[in-house]
Amino acid sequence: MQDKIKQLLKSIASGEQKSLARAITIVENELDGYDALLQGLQQTGAAKIIGITGPPGAGKSTLVNALLHYWVEQGKKIAVVAVDPSSPFNYGALLGDRIRMNHFYNHPNVFIRSLASRGALGGLSAKIVEIADVVKNAPFDYVLVETVGVGQSEVEIAGLADCTVVVLVPEAGDEVQTLKAGIMEIADIFVVNKADRDQAEALYRNLRILAHEKAAEDFETAVLKTVATTNAGIQELAASIDELLSRLSHSERKLQLLLEKSWQLIQARRMKNVNRGLLANQIRTEMEQPEFNLYTFINKYY
Amino acid sequence: MQDKIKQLLKSIASGEQKSLARAITIVENELDGYDALLQGLQQTGAAKIIGITGPPGAGKSTLVNALLHYWVEQGKKIAVVAVDPSSPFNYGALLGDRIRMNHFYNHPNVFIRSLASRGALGGLSAKIVEIADVVKNAPFDYVLVETVGVGQSEVEIAGLADCTVVVLVPEAGDEVQTLKAGIMEIADIFVVNKADRDQAEALYRNLRILAHEKAAEDFETAVLKTVATTNAGIQELAASIDELLSRLSHSERKLQLLLEKSWQLIQARRMKNVNRGLLANQIRTEMEQPEFNLYTFINKYY
Repeated sequence: MQDKIKQLLKSIASGEQKSLARAITIVENELDGYDALLQGLQQTGAAKIIGITGPPGAGKSTLVNALLHYWVEQGKKIAVVAVDPSSPFNYGALLGDRIRMNHFYNHPNVFIRSLASRGALGGLSAKIVEIADVVKNAPFDYVLVETVGVGQSEVEIAGLADCTVVVLVPEAGDEVQTLKAGIMEIADIFVVNKADRDQAEALYRNLRILAHEKAAEDFETAVLKTVATTNAGIQELAASIDELLSRLSHSERKLQLLLEKSWQLIQARRMKNVNRGLLANQIRTEMEQPEFNLYTFINKYY
Repeated sequence: MQDKIKQLLKSIASGEQKSLARAITIVENELDGYDALLQGLQQTGAAKIIGITGPPGAGKSTLVNALLHYWVEQGKKIAVVAVDPSSPFNYGALLGDRIRMNHFYNHPNVFIRSLASRGALGGLSAKIVEIADVVKNAPFDYVLVETVGVGQSEVEIAGLADCTVVVLVPEAGDEVQTLKAGIMEIADIFVVNKADRDQAEALYRNLRILAHEKAAEDFETAVLKTVATTNAGIQELAASIDELLSRLSHSERKLQLLLEKSWQLIQARRMKNVNRGLLANQIRTEMEQPEFNLYTFINKYY
């Protein structure tokens, strides 16, 4: 097994896409060799992880597609990991939404993988951490991780990306005030997509003000406008990503990334032996008691 | 302490809003009496928890506000728990967005509480579970829990609500296909808000088709149109919520709710003794080793 895994890691490092796909499957489903594979990973991969997140309808996939086009033309090698918010019962059924990227499916410099969410309750972030680490061992220039959601979820995703791009649409304007703090913490770059719409300028200006207020001594969150469907602003976005990545080598940032990643991984490992079926049976047995209290119940069993 | 907590629980049950506010503070900050308070909760509260979720810009706060108006006029008692996706560093700083509800701040039948997210990494869902359980011990008819996000986060929120309303805007249409599976799992009611906009009819029709495809024998997810700013469709939404709540008494649903809640609570408890500062120090010490591997590191310490 160890030898097989070593061989697999070697061919991932040499750019074998089929090996990479197999390794991801091993990690995703925790098949034989899962631990050995993770423990054999080099942490020296040059590829940077770029998280692309934002609410539904922000045009994230179109933006990812436009970035792909741009980078492929520059001769770059790119991996895309898209996280589908599907249910465990529809595992992998949502590859259809990747159709817009079909153009690249057979391109030698592009690797695309859709991950379905592994059930609603935790574990997804840890899985993405593991898979992104595997992908980093392949010779890519960029690894794009696309996730839906502005809420708790993308805060977790942000922890694992070297650079987090938050994509908003003009209509999100009303709620920027609400999102203010959380979103400022996670965004390295704001993109106002569909910037040809009416309210775009207002949102753009508000984000600029927010970014300015929160600016650190030497760094202010970038705010960019794009119209992904026409490639407007994509070159500027790519430049902004590169500029940001060039700042990232310092060890405080690296520490922070490792800290967030560790947290997710520890959490997933600690919940591994909590069996949902067993838990359900325990609840079923106790819930009808007149004195039933959920907190006493949990203290008793867990 | 026990006596004090018993007294507190008593006055919560009698409708004392100040006691409720204090109890929430105890639970939120895990102050003295936290465990005793939770273990003293009755699970028999009549109040139903209604989760309102959806992406930024969907108009959730306006919708909550409109529902509040409607129910207050009917003589109902309502609590609103709004979860702000703020950072731990801006704790409670976002009450400003509740300004639209200011009208009700001193209304005897309305209780409003904003919760900031307690840091990016987990624990929030568990905290909401605990706080919602506390609120349920007060004599409300409805407890509205409003959260931002369509992604992992609201799937977690959905687990604790008796009824989950997913609010979308016409612009979300393109991504409904992507959200399909995950969103169908969690939504009890779909609301197409801002339904006076162009693409509303198309989204409405698509959601109806989805709902129909996924319909169980005796139940099909409701799809409603609202324009929250003008109260259009609010009465229908309230009726739809009531209709749904009336189905909920069966024990399979109760079991499912308890299961999701337990999962969140167990997870939070298992991570309680993982100290972020200590973890950071451990990483700091090890990360510069040439052989450093995150997975070996975690296996060693956790």
